Amino acid sequence: MTASTDRPAASASAPEIAPEPRRLAAIDLGSNSFHLLVANYQDDRLQVVARQGDKVQLAAGLDEDGLLDEAAMTRALECLARFAPFLEDIPPRDLRVVGTNALRDADNSQDFIDRAEALLGTRIEIIAGREEARLIYLGAAHAVAEEGRRLIVDIGGGSTEFIIGEHFEPQALESLRMGCVTFTRRFFDNGEITEKRMRRAELAALSELANIQRPFQKLGWSDPVGSSGTIKAAAAVIAAAGKSPEGVITRQGLQDLRKRLLKCKRLDKVAMEGLKPDRARVFPAGIAILGAVFEAFELEAMRYSDGALREGVLYDMAGRNSPEDSRLKTLANLERVYGVDARQADNVAATALGLLDQVREAWELDEDQARFLEWASRLHEMGLAISHSQFHRHGAYLLEHSDLAGFSRPEQRLLAFLVRAHRRKFPVKEWQALPAAERRSHARLARLLRLAVILNHSRPEQPPALPRLAADGEALRLRLAAEAPSLLLADLEQEVAYQQAAELTLTLDTD
Amino acid sequence: MTASTDRPAASASAPEIAPEPRRLAAIDLGSNSFHLLVANYQDDRLQVVARQGDKVQLAAGLDEDGLLDEAAMTRALECLARFAPFLEDIPPRDLRVVGTNALRDADNSQDFIDRAEALLGTRIEIIAGREEARLIYLGAAHAVAEEGRRLIVDIGGGSTEFIIGEHFEPQALESLRMGCVTFTRRFFDNGEITEKRMRRAELAALSELANIQRPFQKLGWSDPVGSSGTIKAAAAVIAAAGKSPEGVITRQGLQDLRKRLLKCKRLDKVAMEGLKPDRARVFPAGIAILGAVFEAFELEAMRYSDGALREGVLYDMAGRNSPEDSRLKTLANLERVYGVDARQADNVAATALGLLDQVREAWELDEDQARFLEWASRLHEMGLAISHSQFHRHGAYLLEHSDLAGFSRPEQRLLAFLVRAHRRKFPVKEWQALPAAERRSHARLARLLRLAVILNHSRPEQPPALPRLAADGEALRLRLAAEAPSLLLADLEQEVAYQQAAELTLTLDTD
Repeated sequence: MTASTDRPAASASAPEIAPEPRRLAAIDLGSNSFHLLVANYQDDRLQVVARQGDKVQLAAGLDEDGLLDEAAMTRALECLARFAPFLEDIPPRDLRVVGTNALRDADNSQDFIDRAEALLGTRIEIIAGREEARLIYLGAAHAVAEEGRRLIVDIGGGSTEFIIGEHFEPQALESLRMGCVTFTRRFFDNGEITEKRMRRAELAALSELANIQRPFQKLGWSDPVGSSGTIKAAAAVIAAAGKSPEGVITRQGLQDLRKRLLKCKRLDKVAMEGLKPDRARVFPAGIAILGAVFEAFELEAMRYSDGALREGVLYDMAGRNSPEDSRLKTLANLERVYGVDARQADNVAATALGLLDQVREAWELDEDQARFLEWASRLHEMGLAISHSQFHRHGAYLLEHSDLAGFSRPEQRLLAFLVRAHRRKFPVKEWQALPAAERRSHARLARLLRLAVILNHSRPEQPPALPRLAADGEALRLRLAAEAPSLLLADLEQEVAYQQAAELTLTLDTD
Repeated sequence: MTASTDRPAASASAPEIAPEPRRLAAIDLGSNSFHLLVANYQDDRLQVVARQGDKVQLAAGLDEDGLLDEAAMTRALECLARFAPFLEDIPPRDLRVVGTNALRDADNSQDFIDRAEALLGTRIEIIAGREEARLIYLGAAHAVAEEGRRLIVDIGGGSTEFIIGEHFEPQALESLRMGCVTFTRRFFDNGEITEKRMRRAELAALSELANIQRPFQKLGWSDPVGSSGTIKAAAAVIAAAGKSPEGVITRQGLQDLRKRLLKCKRLDKVAMEGLKPDRARVFPAGIAILGAVFEAFELEAMRYSDGALREGVLYDMAGRNSPEDSRLKTLANLERVYGVDARQADNVAATALGLLDQVREAWELDEDQARFLEWASRLHEMGLAISHSQFHRHGAYLLEHSDLAGFSRPEQRLLAFLVRAHRRKFPVKEWQALPAAERRSHARLARLLRLAVILNHSRPEQPPALPRLAADGEALRLRLAAEAPSLLLADLEQEVAYQQAAELTLTLDTD
């Protein structure tokens, strides 16, 4: 009974109750389908509570000008209205809604996002292609039991992701701009399925694949795995024809399937055992992409696996704010690659968090915002690696455009804005370009970072003594010691002027 | 007589004649003064043939909107007209005209450059702050005989450069936006010299200096050296007052000089032995900056040295296209930092140069342009380090904004444009934004690079066999082998369409 005597008394006398599992939910706003997944998370496993899928075909609603048409938006919002009841009891931190290629591409996706966020009462994140690939790998890696190096292929409606990895570690992540919906529009727009059209679609896919073919082959793999609708349907159709074991796509089976599709002659005539009618229209384009993947990587067979983006989102969420938070690795990597001065980063972060503590209540700042202020403090000088001149702009460019594993687009936008705004004039134009919901809190965090940078301007060994800071609405009041150095006073007077120019109030008091 | 028998007979019988020295010329379009330097270069030494200087005070002609006013432009063009006769016999490759801070800052500097280029019949390059610092170091390092680690300070009209280096190797380069002309406008605009105004100017300079103070002090130096007008004048005035040896500024001498300036009370009353009247107006601001430099770096004394930007430009030009070409080191560094795939870079460069050879005459492309095509080939994938998506844009951003030692602004712009234009749509907007004189040749080079990238799309081990290429005006005709792979054909058909969209003609022939 040694084990139980180690426990605190209260718990020893209580009956053994397993902790309540955490309920997580994800919505994946794909270019072809929207998916909802609700699951209980315990011991690093997901137990599915609810699954819903809907072929919204968002990418099919992208017009020539890159705008989502009203019909597609309506289909999408109706689908989300059906998903909404499943989310009622899920706290915001356990729910994540991610959008992929079609929403990355559409010029008016913010319109859709605003309406969808109002409907769901939660934030929607557009994620970058490589982030999508990382999350897909996370989902697939949990679904595949076998050891060894895997190649994961996920053919979506607007993009196809390729990942090589072992265990839970991706070693190569790529996202190519080709998918079954966009390729249907591009190569089968008149509804006919001909050899020439199939080949043109395959060549376009091979052309995209040529960019990644060699580095992937160099890494190598023992186990090719496919996920998502196109590959699931291909496996089902081939199995139904008795051509290969359940869940395996062989090269021969795929070639036979291609012939059968050509015999259908028209998209609206495509019908096969194992193929759901609502997939039929985009199936030939999907098979053209899959054929090109087999050709480029010289595959003999591919296994279908269930795990995909939405599962990855749940596993990722489960690991957030824990030591496994993939964002921490990303940040450490950025600091290393861009040679950030660690002591200065530490000092600015310490000062920024000390200032935040003093206005936390008045400005209703939460832990998550404090975390981002800390991270931006660590990264604010990264642009120096490009050039000292305008380095705040260079850092913002890097943060906006890099593939930052674990970060959503809005999170990258927040980091980029804070770094952009940390010195010189307050960037009013960039600030006004932020989504309305982000403006107030982002400006607050930026002003705290600016003060922290000024207080550490002389690059001291230790962070300086914290001056007192108070907020009244958006107005800030900073109280300085009487013996404050004249350089600091000059800097702060300049800062008062910068804030004034942006119609922000900063007042300096001296003891 | 062993030595002479080794020589070819013709030379042995001829009298010993030293080779003709190379005559080089540089014009430095500074924010305060323009300078001309013509010199003979031999055995890594310059023998000055002509020196001219003129206090154009360009930066004083920058109005509130950041535009150079007409009066300043006229002063500048009149000065260049006086310089022009000195340049008559200098071939274009041995002449370099560089512009610094005022021209970096002015929004209408292109107007001025167009007029000045027409007047001089040569190209004018705006150089970045760190490039300016590098060239100043090169000039100063040749002028200073002593060994050891040096701190070089060059106070200009619009910027002040700081360099630490040993021998001819700079170890830290910085350019801060403060100069005697811009600080005169900012702190002495009403013509009065007061303690308060002096101190405000010093604090503003200290605030800029705080950014570099610690890293510079960490590197350390044994020998502080100053160059350019402000420091030369300070040394002369202090020496004339008998306060220190010729050419040395001591801390005490500088403090006394500051007091004397305060006693003058007004800029138009500043007159001292050793000070030229045309420097008087901007002298107090220059001394405020110099005082801040002494304060920040805790200097006891500083030596004045003659070598400066224009000397550095000449030494740099002398080393161009030789193994010491500093640009080669910069390129190798970029390839390393951004992890460029060297084999692919080699292959694309080989193909690009092979294509260029075939249209070299028709398109009048010279060695210098071939060099830039090769360099852009080596760098075209560097943006992949940021993200695969849009990597041509990221590479162009890095090339445009990085401090690239040895490259002028137009050279950086050419590299950035070629990388920007190497894939996807031909960037018509960016192309039209180029200065008119660059448009035709830049588009030609970009089209050669695009074809080279397509021909190496499958990332082969060796560069592919060269197809035949011919140019007729701007129209290109590419002749392919009958057995060309279908993937290549598909890529090239897409390229024909991309060029057509930019109103460029590319025709494909098959044998």
